[in-house]
Amino acid sequence: MPRFGFTLHATDGTARTGTIATPRGEIRTPAFMPVGTAATVKGMLPESVRATGADILLGNTYHLMLRPGAERIERLGGLHRFMNWERPILTDSGGFQVMSLADLRKLTEEGVTFRSHIDGSRHTLTPERSMEIQRALGSDIVMAFDECPALPADRDRIAGSMRLSMRWARRSRDAFGDRPGHALFGIVQGGLERDLRTDSAEALREIGFDGYAIGGLAVGEGQAAMFDCLDYAPGLLPQDRPRYLMGVGKPDDIVGAVARGVDMMDCVLPSRSGRTGQAWTRRGQVNIKNARHADDPRPLDEDCTCPACRGYSRAYLHHVFRAGEMISGMLLTWHNLHYYQQIMAGMREAIAAGRFDEWQAAFHALRAEGDIDPV
Amino acid sequence: MPRFGFTLHATDGTARTGTIATPRGEIRTPAFMPVGTAATVKGMLPESVRATGADILLGNTYHLMLRPGAERIERLGGLHRFMNWERPILTDSGGFQVMSLADLRKLTEEGVTFRSHIDGSRHTLTPERSMEIQRALGSDIVMAFDECPALPADRDRIAGSMRLSMRWARRSRDAFGDRPGHALFGIVQGGLERDLRTDSAEALREIGFDGYAIGGLAVGEGQAAMFDCLDYAPGLLPQDRPRYLMGVGKPDDIVGAVARGVDMMDCVLPSRSGRTGQAWTRRGQVNIKNARHADDPRPLDEDCTCPACRGYSRAYLHHVFRAGEMISGMLLTWHNLHYYQQIMAGMREAIAAGRFDEWQAAFHALRAEGDIDPV
Repeated sequence: MPRFGFTLHATDGTARTGTIATPRGEIRTPAFMPVGTAATVKGMLPESVRATGADILLGNTYHLMLRPGAERIERLGGLHRFMNWERPILTDSGGFQVMSLADLRKLTEEGVTFRSHIDGSRHTLTPERSMEIQRALGSDIVMAFDECPALPADRDRIAGSMRLSMRWARRSRDAFGDRPGHALFGIVQGGLERDLRTDSAEALREIGFDGYAIGGLAVGEGQAAMFDCLDYAPGLLPQDRPRYLMGVGKPDDIVGAVARGVDMMDCVLPSRSGRTGQAWTRRGQVNIKNARHADDPRPLDEDCTCPACRGYSRAYLHHVFRAGEMISGMLLTWHNLHYYQQIMAGMREAIAAGRFDEWQAAFHALRAEGDIDPV
Repeated sequence: MPRFGFTLHATDGTARTGTIATPRGEIRTPAFMPVGTAATVKGMLPESVRATGADILLGNTYHLMLRPGAERIERLGGLHRFMNWERPILTDSGGFQVMSLADLRKLTEEGVTFRSHIDGSRHTLTPERSMEIQRALGSDIVMAFDECPALPADRDRIAGSMRLSMRWARRSRDAFGDRPGHALFGIVQGGLERDLRTDSAEALREIGFDGYAIGGLAVGEGQAAMFDCLDYAPGLLPQDRPRYLMGVGKPDDIVGAVARGVDMMDCVLPSRSGRTGQAWTRRGQVNIKNARHADDPRPLDEDCTCPACRGYSRAYLHHVFRAGEMISGMLLTWHNLHYYQQIMAGMREAIAAGRFDEWQAAFHALRAEGDIDPV
């Protein structure tokens, strides 16, 4: 079986473009990973997600372990077959979500015990159990089990949490073992404290991972603080391994992160926005429920080639959102994921051509113009 | 512009197969028309509806006049462009739905005044206004404005309602005028009273329509009573015009209606069932939320070629239904519409080959076996 590997093709400033090879297919970087929390990208068929240009999906360990259960998915042939997505899947470790979603959490050196937010059943997640679940799911890129506070938080809390996560990273590495064709990523923590981030990155490099994530951002600190951290955090990581910024973000967050050396990102925003009537276009955000769209025969973006823009007017999208029709979420999610992948493709091309500054200037200029005027 | 026309290709007993020609494409009969109430077949993209084999959709005048408004749709280029479905559309007249859905209805010789169930706004529907709305929508097959009681109802109420509908049918015909390429269908009423149905059919034939619908069935009378009526009602209508049974039904209702000489049907059942976790297969109804499916790796129907059956296990469909995921309604609706169109295609082929009795025997035999046993 071919092994997991990362090839860097070009850099432009600190921005990078490359390819992650996996037995289930290549991942072109910078890559945006749509989120398929409960074994589905909400409102999309997997072939439609692929049609937007996605090379890889993210699945959530916390949700899947509770429903339908990791061992059930394993018996059914693994997550890829279960959800009808044969390309790469990255799974998170459950650490972040158990702390934000579960009830009656109890955190110890060993791990986290909690009650399911779905049925109140009692569960335990440890580094070892997280590795076992992600193996049962058949994940291609497995995340080390970690824990992090929302920001702002005091330095002691951030430091303690980071050090615990580093001990868990070691246990994750040991439990993961040697699985050719599958990758284990470590997660840098340390909040906005540069020295803690530096310690964390060193601890992870010492253990050795197939890729490195930057965790604990996009948790309330704001874009400026996040970018300040990203000005140095990617540089703490090995050049020859992919760098994954977790849970980011809006289009301008993504562009700023890539400019600072990030290779992979994930976020629920494009799909969640799609279900609440929010579209993302080259000109910024469009709230389709606004009455100004009710008679507008124009598409969301006349230069967009997604099915929502090729087939439907703003007036239609407004109508079906107001009427509560499923097609509203289906079309807007498709558009948003398509637009996100267009951003990624544009950045990959621009970086490869050494024109990323130009590309960014054009990206920001069009956004500054804002949405088209009403008819 | 080519004119509307109906060609009968073959009969087998009282069952018929043929083609309705319209400027927007052919409709193969017997035809099942998926319902796109509010300018969308719920949970489906129009290209997916087409992929199931649908030649024509039904739109609801009542819903569309209230939201987004018929004149708005007209300004936007008509219903076909609005909802991205360029093939034929049949619209109902609003008569049935205003009586079942609207608030504060007042029925007079002139028409019906009512308040919108959406925002309480006041509206009037008359034969003339219904024709105007259906013209504004751009409907290919326009239905005469009528009214009918739920069954059981007393004979006087049924007779009075039928005679009013016949006067409205005349006004509909006059208001419709001459619109090459567009068809106007009259609607036979009269409940389960054979003499009233006969009078109604004669009144409509006297006026002259491009096709004839059988209305006022599937309103609570049960399958046996409906079939008793269908044993004679289609025979009251001209051989050379399409016959449309409104609002029917379950798979066995459809097969029984075609056997009795019906050419067209519509029903929300396959799409509504899809959203509530009910699948229709060759073996009858499957309730996907039942726990017996939780670990079942088999598709709903191993011989079905729809995306739900080709790509997903019962276990997956069970999981996404339980998790409240949109893909549940999307996949089950697709399956149900696909299965309905498979029934129609099978009947058309069997009638053309003079083997419709055989086909019906096989249809009923497989249903009698029931769903596959749990694993």
